[in-house]
Amino acid sequence: MLVQLTYASRTAGILGAIDVKDILTASKRNNALVGVTGALCLSNGIFLQQLEGDKTEVNALYHRLLRDERHRDPAILDFSEITQRRFGSWSMGLLSTLEENRQLFQKYSVTRDFDPYAMSIPSLRAFFSEVVDNVRWLG
Amino acid sequence: MLVQLTYASRTAGILGAIDVKDILTASKRNNALVGVTGALCLSNGIFLQQLEGDKTEVNALYHRLLRDERHRDPAILDFSEITQRRFGSWSMGLLSTLEENRQLFQKYSVTRDFDPYAMSIPSLRAFFSEVVDNVRWLG
Amino acid sequence: MLVQLTYASRTAGILGAIDVKDILTASKRNNALVGVTGALCLSNGIFLQQLEGDKTEVNALYHRLLRDERHRDPAILDFSEITQRRFGSWSMGLLSTLEENRQLFQKYSVTRDFDPYAMSIPSLRAFFSEVVDNVRWLG
Amino acid sequence: MLVQLTYASRTAGILGAIDVKDILTASKRNNALVGVTGALCLSNGIFLQQLEGDKTEVNALYHRLLRDERHRDPAILDFSEITQRRFGSWSMGLLSTLEENRQLFQKYSVTRDFDPYAMSIPSLRAFFSEVVDNVRWLG
Amino acid sequence: MLVQLTYASRTAGILGAIDVKDILTASKRNNALVGVTGALCLSNGIFLQQLEGDKTEVNALYHRLLRDERHRDPAILDFSEITQRRFGSWSMGLLSTLEENRQLFQKYSVTRDFDPYAMSIPSLRAFFSEVVDNVRWLG
Amino acid sequence: MLVQLTYASRTAGILGAIDVKDILTASKRNNALVGVTGALCLSNGIFLQQLEGDKTEVNALYHRLLRDERHRDPAILDFSEITQRRFGSWSMGLLSTLEENRQLFQKYSVTRDFDPYAMSIPSLRAFFSEVVDNVRWLG
Amino acid sequence: MLVQLTYASRTAGILGAIDVKDILTASKRNNALVGVTGALCLSNGIFLQQLEGDKTEVNALYHRLLRDERHRDPAILDFSEITQRRFGSWSMGLLSTLEENRQLFQKYSVTRDFDPYAMSIPSLRAFFSEVVDNVRWLG
Amino acid sequence: MLVQLTYASRTAGILGAIDVKDILTASKRNNALVGVTGALCLSNGIFLQQLEGDKTEVNALYHRLLRDERHRDPAILDFSEITQRRFGSWSMGLLSTLEENRQLFQKYSVTRDFDPYAMSIPSLRAFFSEVVDNVRWLG
Amino acid sequence: MLVQLTYASRTAGILGAIDVKDILTASKRNNALVGVTGALCLSNGIFLQQLEGDKTEVNALYHRLLRDERHRDPAILDFSEITQRRFGSWSMGLLSTLEENRQLFQKYSVTRDFDPYAMSIPSLRAFFSEVVDNVRWLG
Amino acid sequence: MLVQLTYASRTAGILGAIDVKDILTASKRNNALVGVTGALCLSNGIFLQQLEGDKTEVNALYHRLLRDERHRDPAILDFSEITQRRFGSWSMGLLSTLEENRQLFQKYSVTRDFDPYAMSIPSLRAFFSEVVDNVRWLG
Ligand SMILES: Cc1cc2nc3c(=O)[nH]c(=O)nc-3n(C[C@H](O)[C@H](O)[C@H](O)COP(=O)(O)O)c2cc1C
Ligand SMILES: Cc1cc2nc3c(=O)[nH]c(=O)nc-3n(C[C@H](O)[C@H](O)[C@H](O)COP(=O)(O)O)c2cc1C
Ligand SMILES: Cc1cc2nc3c(=O)[nH]c(=O)nc-3n(C[C@H](O)[C@H](O)[C@H](O)COP(=O)(O)O)c2cc1C
Ligand SMILES: Cc1cc2nc3c(=O)[nH]c(=O)nc-3n(C[C@H](O)[C@H](O)[C@H](O)COP(=O)(O)O)c2cc1C
Ligand SMILES: Cc1cc2nc3c(=O)[nH]c(=O)nc-3n(C[C@H](O)[C@H](O)[C@H](O)COP(=O)(O)O)c2cc1C
Ligand SMILES: Cc1cc2nc3c(=O)[nH]c(=O)nc-3n(C[C@H](O)[C@H](O)[C@H](O)COP(=O)(O)O)c2cc1C
Ligand SMILES: Cc1cc2nc3c(=O)[nH]c(=O)nc-3n(C[C@H](O)[C@H](O)[C@H](O)COP(=O)(O)O)c2cc1C
Ligand SMILES: Cc1cc2nc3c(=O)[nH]c(=O)nc-3n(C[C@H](O)[C@H](O)[C@H](O)COP(=O)(O)O)c2cc1C
Ligand SMILES: Cc1cc2nc3c(=O)[nH]c(=O)nc-3n(C[C@H](O)[C@H](O)[C@H](O)COP(=O)(O)O)c2cc1C
Ligand SMILES: Cc1cc2nc3c(=O)[nH]c(=O)nc-3n(C[C@H](O)[C@H](O)[C@H](O)COP(=O)(O)O)c2cc1C
Repeated sequence: MLVQLTYASRTAGILGAIDVKDILTASKRNNALVGVTGALCLSNGIFLQQLEGDKTEVNALYHRLLRDERHRDPAILDFSEITQRRFGSWSMGLLSTLEENRQLFQKYSVTRDFDPYAMSIPSLRAFFSEVVDNVRWLG
Repeated sequence: MLVQLTYASRTAGILGAIDVKDILTASKRNNALVGVTGALCLSNGIFLQQLEGDKTEVNALYHRLLRDERHRDPAILDFSEITQRRFGSWSMGLLSTLEENRQLFQKYSVTRDFDPYAMSIPSLRAFFSEVVDNVRWLG
Repeated sequence: MLVQLTYASRTAGILGAIDVKDILTASKRNNALVGVTGALCLSNGIFLQQLEGDKTEVNALYHRLLRDERHRDPAILDFSEITQRRFGSWSMGLLSTLEENRQLFQKYSVTRDFDPYAMSIPSLRAFFSEVVDNVRWLG
Repeated sequence: MLVQLTYASRTAGILGAIDVKDILTASKRNNALVGVTGALCLSNGIFLQQLEGDKTEVNALYHRLLRDERHRDPAILDFSEITQRRFGSWSMGLLSTLEENRQLFQKYSVTRDFDPYAMSIPSLRAFFSEVVDNVRWLG
Repeated sequence: MLVQLTYASRTAGILGAIDVKDILTASKRNNALVGVTGALCLSNGIFLQQLEGDKTEVNALYHRLLRDERHRDPAILDFSEITQRRFGSWSMGLLSTLEENRQLFQKYSVTRDFDPYAMSIPSLRAFFSEVVDNVRWLG
Repeated sequence: MLVQLTYASRTAGILGAIDVKDILTASKRNNALVGVTGALCLSNGIFLQQLEGDKTEVNALYHRLLRDERHRDPAILDFSEITQRRFGSWSMGLLSTLEENRQLFQKYSVTRDFDPYAMSIPSLRAFFSEVVDNVRWLG
Repeated sequence: MLVQLTYASRTAGILGAIDVKDILTASKRNNALVGVTGALCLSNGIFLQQLEGDKTEVNALYHRLLRDERHRDPAILDFSEITQRRFGSWSMGLLSTLEENRQLFQKYSVTRDFDPYAMSIPSLRAFFSEVVDNVRWLG
Repeated sequence: MLVQLTYASRTAGILGAIDVKDILTASKRNNALVGVTGALCLSNGIFLQQLEGDKTEVNALYHRLLRDERHRDPAILDFSEITQRRFGSWSMGLLSTLEENRQLFQKYSVTRDFDPYAMSIPSLRAFFSEVVDNVRWLG
Repeated sequence: MLVQLTYASRTAGILGAIDVKDILTASKRNNALVGVTGALCLSNGIFLQQLEGDKTEVNALYHRLLRDERHRDPAILDFSEITQRRFGSWSMGLLSTLEENRQLFQKYSVTRDFDPYAMSIPSLRAFFSEVVDNVRWLG
Repeated sequence: MLVQLTYASRTAGILGAIDVKDILTASKRNNALVGVTGALCLSNGIFLQQLEGDKTEVNALYHRLLRDERHRDPAILDFSEITQRRFGSWSMGLLSTLEENRQLFQKYSVTRDFDPYAMSIPSLRAFFSEVVDNVRWLG
């Protein structure tokens, strides 16, 4: 079953550009092996990640990620079967917080700062749809 | 929860261009702090304002606005959860009554003069959708 | 409440171009005052008029029109609440029966000659939608 | 085409029980001849009548009724094609304002007193549906 | 393909009870052989028949019936694919015009007298649905 | 009531180009008088015709056509109320079987050869929609 | 326009049974005059009230209530046009927190204690629907 | 994935009651092992079977059945994912052609004799739904 | 936000009746404090649990449960916002595998043995709906 | 009835380019005769074929294909009535696994490698829709 799982977590301690680069490098290497694709956002000290792939693989990956000490307060925000992948071509893309993407974050933010924990499920889905079409990617 | 609240009120006494400028200046300053965005129309002595943001913040702002003596006869016209903001990029835009916008007002007016109190909820929603796309903004 | 009322009537006696011009002139003058807009078709000796505006004003106008001796056999064909006006920019437009519009009439005619009395409600609505977009106006 | 036309009007001058009885008697006699059925409510000095039958007959009857000096301020409230009659068995039923029906009126009233002019179209339809099932009829 | 075809025709000349009985007898005999079922109504000098069965058989029967001189002015009123038969148990039932069925006819009549030629397609379908459940059958 | 009736029939005996031309000429002359429009296809020895117009006129025409000895095995394939005509500008168009139209026929054919008798109702409707937009006409 | 407005507020200071009785008595007296009906719940130190009636009257009442010092932190939770009243027969009913109603509160509570501020709009609507059918009323 | 597969086949040669009993006995024994349930009808020399279970198991069983020489002319009639089993309690039920079930067969038959090859997909689904509720089972 | 999260896991090692009782006792004690309700099934060595409550609390509980060594191979199967709780009255109910419930499990099983990992999301939802109404509870 | 049948199978033994060419040549020759069209994909040692045409012909072809020893493990994946053919112009197209088509396969793959057995029905349909528009064809 092809599914997507969307979750948020908070960066634990101080996370530098190198750490993020490490996470991306590992993600691309590992996810490609198990056919998982997706996008990772980092804004306001919060990770928002959408993982897509086989239900078993996505679950295995998610439950493995939970043991990573670079984040905490994990919260599942959305989970559903999908017909096709949104991020078919990236094994893991990073949505940067560059100035260019600020308007996008703002449009879907409940509060002043981007807070995925507070977003509704339809809002999360609309956000990722717009991400695929309009956003400048790093990495 | 991301919501929009739309209300109308009547200008109390005579309201000059300076007053409107004051309202806008304060709105932009305050709303940006609490992540509220929206649009304010002034036509025919009636304010029509759509506020969007966190349910708690929008409620706090609305109930504070009620104490402003520059308007009276407040009436809630619409309230709903939303998936994304319409006015994500303005902390508060003003829809002027310039000649250019006259046709827009007319298209949604029940009566000859623009009277938001008399508009149906679907009509208000269609009006604000068209505002975002087609209108010239002041301020 | 913003409504549209569509009705048909037959010209009583012989109606010249001047009469039609008189009707249009009066319509524009009066309708603008009460915020009524719409379109008037004359074809095959039958008037087909769509009036849009406040429910009370449209009703007042319609019931006043009934006393005009230039037409008879009035029949209400459609009545509904609307979200926005179709003919927002005309206080009353006239759809001529010039050759150019013949195809439009034919597409929606039940019988060989244009006979609004025989049209279904969905057909009337589709007709007026196409009128707004495609038709050459007189007057 | 089978249609229903719903309208309101105000009693002109004082209308006694005899007048109402006269209206009902004439209605039953005339409507049966042309296959029109329906219901007439009288409450708060306002008539609310739903007529159902052939589009031509309902229109002819309605436009004849307008000349009756016992009412004024006529307003069309609803008009639509229907699949079957609601009041198939009455040529014209009267909904009395007896105490028993008070709750029904109240449930659909916008304001304290029953005011059909102010009712929305869905509300009018729900009202007449409930009338058919639950109400005690006079006459 | 399982279809229903509904048509009306007018009795030609005077048709006695015997003629109707003849039609029914032949219908039952013939229709059973080709798997056609249905209902036949006779009211106001008009036949209204719904035939259901295989598309080819229903068409063959219908086009054969047209040659029967006991009726004229045939008009197809409805035709559609169906999932199951309404009249599965009768090869041809007759809906009498007995007093008991008068209310049913009236509920779906456009005009005072039952006139299937004037009925809309949704109205015809609702009529036959109600027939199956509520009507007393002859023959 | 504006309807369309779609039927198929088989050419009886050998039908030359002249015969087809005769049918078209008569169709155009007669249909224009009664406000019937439509399209006629001839392929694989089978006529497929869609007639649109007033319910009474279409029925009268169809039942008259049945007496034409140039075709046999008539079968009604579709019948429905419509909001507007598809073939408003032709009193009767002929869809030739030229090479150019072969792909269109093939896309909607159940079997190798075009056989309208075997087509489902949704398939027939999709076919005629595509005909109006894409096809080269003869005649 | 018939609307419902649902809001929550917190009791200010200590509120005894007498105070609640006072509020109810005043509500019944005043609301009956302006045709407002509804229900008031008090649980966990939070008021949850649904007001239904004319848009102008409900707004006037709500904005007057805001000045009552027995509650604070008002928050609009839902607002919509309605076809008919839910609480047509009570000018104001009180939903007690008696043991009997505990299961109802629990079924719709987001958190352990009843907290209307946190309820979604569909949840609020489902809650009030169940209230009307199943709950024991006080007062 | 939980699916149902519906197919028809013709009995090859003469099939006695014993053969049918053998098929049922083997079906119950084998299907229970792989979690396949369903129903088998035999009427008019045609088998109609609905198999439900895991997509892989249903496919394995179906493709094995094809090698059984007691039937021929297999044709897949329907295949879809399902949410729950219809025949959860039988590993394989037999729908007899006893007199009691005749009306059911007739209601869904296109032609006089029960011919599943000719049934539409919606018709097959409606048939099996009615089977579960209303039919007397053998075996 | 009121949500439900459904997951499966496998019992690690041998789990006796006492262990299950311990889990239930702890669940009831803890869940009541944070307003989480739900149901726990144990069949075929697999736990299937539906948790409902505040999004934050359900997430906190789920991520805590993952550390319990009595189960392994956790997999999120469903997650959605809900309007009301299904299991409002139990802080945690246990669905036993007694003989009485066997039919229920079978109806929703993809394979012979109950395997929630293989169930589709609509199937899981239908299963829990039926559980609430029809099942005998332990403990 | 126009249907599509989609199935997968595994190549048996080693299959060279010549074998594939043979299959295609035979398919084109045979399918054209019986009016079957479609597409054949070969990726990852798995065939995925969609056949469209008359229900009887598609079934006959499919059941004949099963006897071809060049593939095994056949599994029906989808079957439905269709309104028009997708692959009207090819008697059988081959979707190559060239680099250009890799992204398309990936977008619909559940796992890393293309595995049609694991695809959901909506996913299969979306895949073939995209194939028609975007893909480079061999053969
Ligand atoms: C927010 C976040 C997201 C991550 N996403 C992924 C991912 O998608 N795939 C992945 O393999 N690792 C991901 N990781 C890293 C894993 O936790 C872990 O460090 C990594 O898989 C180890 O890979 P390695 O053993 O190949 O070095 C993520 C870590 C964090 C903090
Ligand atoms: C029609 C109207 C709309 C207003 N809208 C806003 C608003 O969106 N945000 C805001 O902060 N103040 C708004 N105000 C002004 C407030 O009532 C108040 O004057 C202002 O918030 C005070 O800000 P200050 O204390 O920062 O000067 C509005 C006033 C009126 C009359
Ligand atoms: C078919 C028809 C349509 C008309 N439409 C309008 C109209 O839309 N508005 C209007 O004011 N008068 C309309 N009239 C004319 C009125 O009946 C009446 O003559 C006019 O309103 C008188 O205006 P005056 O009193 O200002 O001269 C119409 C008349 C006819 C016959
Ligand atoms: C509110 C109202 C409703 C009426 N409804 C009907 C009606 O449904 N049918 C009818 O024939 N007359 C109705 N009438 C009466 C007609 O206006 C008119 O008096 C009557 O048709 C004259 O009938 P007669 O000429 O047979 O006496 C109604 C009158 C009023 C005031
Ligand atoms: C209104 C009407 C409906 C009829 N319906 C049927 C019918 O459903 N089946 C049928 O076989 N004959 C029907 N008939 C009779 C046929 O026209 C024809 O008389 C009959 O099929 C001849 O049968 P026979 O040749 O077996 O005597 C109908 C006739 C009329 C006037
Ligand atoms: C397949 C077919 C389709 C026809 N379509 C029409 C048509 O649409 N209109 C028409 O008047 N005649 C049509 N005809 C011809 C009529 O059957 C008849 O010959 C013609 O109406 C006689 O016209 P006339 O009396 O004016 O010569 C059609 C004939 C065939 C065989
Ligand atoms: C939570 C709450 C709900 C209330 N609801 C109503 C109400 O529905 N109608 C009303 O008239 N007063 C209501 N009141 C009371 C009003 O605030 C006010 O005290 C009252 O209308 C004064 O009425 P009086 O001037 O007739 O004494 C409410 C007060 C509170 C605290
Ligand atoms: C119409 C038909 C339906 C059948 N259905 C089933 C079935 O559902 N399950 C099954 O195991 N065998 C079924 N069979 C029988 C198989 O073809 C085969 O004989 C049987 O599975 C052999 O089982 P055995 O090897 O255990 O004796 C069916 C046979 C026919 C002709
Ligand atoms: C399958 C499974 C489901 C459980 N469900 C819950 C639960 O709903 N709530 C809960 O508090 N503990 C649950 N537990 C137990 C927790 O993992 C943990 O043992 C318990 O919360 C510890 O509680 P205590 O610290 O109060 O003893 C579950 C354990 C298992 C294996
Ligand atoms: C995966 C696969 C797909 C095939 N598709 C078709 C097809 O669509 N049409 C066809 O005639 N043969 C197809 N074949 C080949 C047939 O199995 C068989 O070899 C062929 O029809 C024999 O044709 P011939 O007797 O004309 O040589 C396919 C074979 C395989 C392995």
